[in-house]
Amino acid sequence: MRMVDLIEKKRDGHVLTTEEINFIVDGFTNGSIPDYQMSALSMAIFFKGMTEQERADLTMAMVNSGDTIDLADIEGIKVDKHSTGGVGDTTTLVLGPLVAAVDVPVAKMSGRGLGHTGGTIDKLEAIEGFHVEIDNQEFIDLVNKNKIAVIGQSGNLTPADKKLYALRDVTATVDSIPLIASSIMSKKIAAGADAIVLDVKTGAGAFMKSFDDAKELAGAMVRIGNNVGRNTMAVISDMSQPLGYAIGNALEVQEAIDTLQGKGPKDLEELCLVLGSQMVFLAGKAESLEDAREKLIEVMNNGKALEKFKVFLEAQGGDGSIVHDPSKLPQAKYVIEVEAKEDGYVSEIVADEIGTAAMILGAGRATKESEIDLAVGLMLRKKVGDKVAKGESLVTMYTNTEDVEKVKEIIYANMKISKEEVAEPVLVHGVITE
Amino acid sequence: MRMVDLIEKKRDGHVLTTEEINFIVDGFTNGSIPDYQMSALSMAIFFKGMTEQERADLTMAMVNSGDTIDLADIEGIKVDKHSTGGVGDTTTLVLGPLVAAVDVPVAKMSGRGLGHTGGTIDKLEAIEGFHVEIDNQEFIDLVNKNKIAVIGQSGNLTPADKKLYALRDVTATVDSIPLIASSIMSKKIAAGADAIVLDVKTGAGAFMKSFDDAKELAGAMVRIGNNVGRNTMAVISDMSQPLGYAIGNALEVQEAIDTLQGKGPKDLEELCLVLGSQMVFLAGKAESLEDAREKLIEVMNNGKALEKFKVFLEAQGGDGSIVHDPSKLPQAKYVIEVEAKEDGYVSEIVADEIGTAAMILGAGRATKESEIDLAVGLMLRKKVGDKVAKGESLVTMYTNTEDVEKVKEIIYANMKISKEEVAEPVLVHGVITE
Repeated sequence: MRMVDLIEKKRDGHVLTTEEINFIVDGFTNGSIPDYQMSALSMAIFFKGMTEQERADLTMAMVNSGDTIDLADIEGIKVDKHSTGGVGDTTTLVLGPLVAAVDVPVAKMSGRGLGHTGGTIDKLEAIEGFHVEIDNQEFIDLVNKNKIAVIGQSGNLTPADKKLYALRDVTATVDSIPLIASSIMSKKIAAGADAIVLDVKTGAGAFMKSFDDAKELAGAMVRIGNNVGRNTMAVISDMSQPLGYAIGNALEVQEAIDTLQGKGPKDLEELCLVLGSQMVFLAGKAESLEDAREKLIEVMNNGKALEKFKVFLEAQGGDGSIVHDPSKLPQAKYVIEVEAKEDGYVSEIVADEIGTAAMILGAGRATKESEIDLAVGLMLRKKVGDKVAKGESLVTMYTNTEDVEKVKEIIYANMKISKEEVAEPVLVHGVITE
Repeated sequence: MRMVDLIEKKRDGHVLTTEEINFIVDGFTNGSIPDYQMSALSMAIFFKGMTEQERADLTMAMVNSGDTIDLADIEGIKVDKHSTGGVGDTTTLVLGPLVAAVDVPVAKMSGRGLGHTGGTIDKLEAIEGFHVEIDNQEFIDLVNKNKIAVIGQSGNLTPADKKLYALRDVTATVDSIPLIASSIMSKKIAAGADAIVLDVKTGAGAFMKSFDDAKELAGAMVRIGNNVGRNTMAVISDMSQPLGYAIGNALEVQEAIDTLQGKGPKDLEELCLVLGSQMVFLAGKAESLEDAREKLIEVMNNGKALEKFKVFLEAQGGDGSIVHDPSKLPQAKYVIEVEAKEDGYVSEIVADEIGTAAMILGAGRATKESEIDLAVGLMLRKKVGDKVAKGESLVTMYTNTEDVEKVKEIIYANMKISKEEVAEPVLVHGVITE
């Protein structure tokens, strides 16, 4: 088998076999297939696509290119959730305790984040004492006991995907649905998921700007999952503005605490209920999605979801009392309001740019080496569709510096006010359940 | 400027500017743009093509990536001919003396060949004493004096093209008209041509199997040439069977001698007249293509073309007497006929395979290191459309070994005989003069 022939085959619109895809992924991982052939193949895939079978084969070849996590010792169906990323997305923090409260095992492997705010581990580290340095056995025991635990990423998972992503990034071959879908799915499957729930964001602040692209990606991932024996569902959710109000680590933990009690922002709560319902249903803990939703609302209302968060934090060394006294979370030195300059209706909040503003305050990492300031961030006071009067707060800045002129400017430039009434954006654009 | 953005630009069907193409070619040549980006761009070009301006820019950027040959000290318009390659193609050997005999300056830089037979220099070295190791000044003086000289390839011509071709060869991006056309044209221009005549082969034995592809390539090259100030014309000629009768180095020299006197195979003579007319016309030595053709026929008939060949050979140390006594050329030990096994009409001669048969006898190089046997080769005794009787010779093998069973087998397998009458193939499928 020669790689050049396989590139030509794909270039001419033919279908690669399982054996051929394994040859490509193995060779690329071990270096016998050079980058310049893999980038040419990626560009051919960009133009010619991949069949469902090819996508499933590519996914499993990437899973098998490295270590895989064995969660067999954890009782029940392990459901993992993945979000394609956005601004102020607190869903992961909420969903873990929420579904664990209805007995869905949550065995979460997580990392530190690059971008507007930290990753899930960074956010949890806003809670004093909390740590993820536990060994595999402790991790498994904790999930069996409490239904939830988080461990730092370890092992050499999907090296083929890591290498391919880095190559795609510099060869203009990122925007290929088959390549994006198999990349995401390979990571979830290598991390041990039996079933997968996907939150595909769409809108100005998302990677998939258009609904059609988001729908195509969601469908592609659901079909890959189902084709490789992992029940998969997806939600296409709005990221035309940031989700919830909080953008910043401690601020998001506080928002998660509110949401676990049914007192959070309505959009965040709703998305957590939709995604959570899919997780509970796929884990076999409810008869239907509607049944699952009722169970989740119940644990929000009766305090079990919040209690689960406390148990989880304490099991990993954290100060569980913060769930009842969030003032123990890191606090910023200055609280500064950004006031509306005119009357009107909020017509646009450019999520990316608002996220960048939070990062400049110190909430996120611009590079891997950056230090995160867990206390700082932004709280939106108005969302798209809200009426606002001149002088009212649009955003509250939590900051450890008074030098916030640049951040303020970004906020003004990216939070637009219109004289006309503006409709609230639709939150859930679509659901793919099979 | 970032290469990844330029790849994306081309991928999305936009047009690259002159500055951008220069950036790409310069960076690729000096190594600041890695192979994996260039191969992704090549694949994007495969799918999205290039405009006329982009093709001209790419050609000139490749010309400027290395040395260029300055032929300014040679009087007159220097016309170069390029053939896209075929089997038994003796045109270059004929055309040089032929057009030089009507005062067109032929300043030929040539190389050794890989494939069925040697390159032009290998063929000329079948003549005792002939050599191409002359310096630039001697080369220029000889062309000014005799109108014809051949020099070995020297200098670092079009390094960008060499590097890109090697990369395309292993990334399934060879078959792209804009890339093929700019590759060929850049080499001719760097070698100092003021005007260019192209012989684009089509048919089973050619790189361009279909007429449409050949026509597209020919048109692309003619437009590049004219867009960068080099008057260019093209002929689309048949390579569904080998051209002429001879395949082998000394055999082709002998065939060239015949053709220079108007006694060669009709197809070879005709193609030389069509290509030669374009060369003479572009060199400004005739009023029209018809006028040019008449002049060429005249020098064939009055002996001037053959005399020019003799003068040329002697000027570079060769034994000119071979033009009157070809028995002085290297002779093979054995002459073996391949006889027809049945009556009928020759319906097909698979040029590629017949060429390979000649190579196996020793006429060509399989690798750069192979030694050529100048004496050996094949003479076709029948061509497509010819009537043949059982026992008549189809091919004469000139060989230095009696172990020719394998070669014979290849010939029988690739020279097909039909009971029905077969039409002679059309030789010149098209001419592009502007």
